[in-house]
Amino acid sequence: MKTLQCHLLTAAAFKPYGDVIEMSGTNPISINSGNCLRYSDLAALDIDSSGAAGISIFDAKPYQSPMQLNYVERHPLGSQAFIPMTSDAYIVVVADDINGTAQEPKVFLTNGKQGVNYARNVWHGVLTPVIQQSLFTVVDYIGTADNLEEYFFDTPYFIEFFES
Amino acid sequence: MKTLQCHLLTAAAFKPYGDVIEMSGTNPISINSGNCLRYSDLAALDIDSSGAAGISIFDAKPYQSPMQLNYVERHPLGSQAFIPMTSDAYIVVVADDINGTAQEPKVFLTNGKQGVNYARNVWHGVLTPVIQQSLFTVVDYIGTADNLEEYFFDTPYFIEFFES
Repeated sequence: MKTLQCHLLTAAAFKPYGDVIEMSGTNPISINSGNCLRYSDLAALDIDSSGAAGISIFDAKPYQSPMQLNYVERHPLGSQAFIPMTSDAYIVVVADDINGTAQEPKVFLTNGKQGVNYARNVWHGVLTPVIQQSLFTVVDYIGTADNLEEYFFDTPYFIEFFES
Repeated sequence: MKTLQCHLLTAAAFKPYGDVIEMSGTNPISINSGNCLRYSDLAALDIDSSGAAGISIFDAKPYQSPMQLNYVERHPLGSQAFIPMTSDAYIVVVADDINGTAQEPKVFLTNGKQGVNYARNVWHGVLTPVIQQSLFTVVDYIGTADNLEEYFFDTPYFIEFFES
């Protein structure tokens, strides 16, 4: 099995797959008499009209390195944004698609102040905290239609997220 | 000047003003082979069709007790959700409206795992961390129309958020 290395998440590297929701690279607006900076409109929400965008909380258990990656998933009915409710890092896995087949994944580690917004139909790994059980704000498709596709790799990958 | 006391935030007390975005009181769905619980669709998003819902980050400085409350604000073009990106408590201020006049505010303290979604046109205070400078995920109206009304109290209030 192939072991995938982890790289720090950047907007440039993630651009083909969606948005990094972060303050870096964005000009804020000063509001509330200078007490607050607003970094506005950081994700391209793309939600199918058969449903609507909604806000959810995900409560996810942590994973340990090396982690076995058996599959990725994607959502045909909308983008899906994850923003941490704690300042812990987590792993972001994405993969290119060729004719419905997920290619070798790319693996990123967040800096504790980054969310991600997977574009509609982008193959990605499940929510993967690595420090502790963690809460995430999720903005995605709310509706009754089937919004999940999974792709199981012929040979699973291993992911190492902390170098020894 | 009148001093307002602070109460722990509950969904029941906040119901006239919007949603508490929290896990309590909601049945989750188990996903990702049991590694994640999804608490789904926790806020009634209500965004004017002249714009669209978007995701922003607010970076807000903390306030100290007793805090002087000079004004509240409201947004005619949409609901506005705040979910913390750290596990720190913050203050939530809301007020009833009578013919465009904000009434005596109610003040709540969150438990570190709660967001709020102010309903459209509900008078509320500005983002008020009380522990440290904090980041928040915000989901609100993104558009070019004027979406801010402010109401200045004839006599400011004081808010005490930690009992001595």
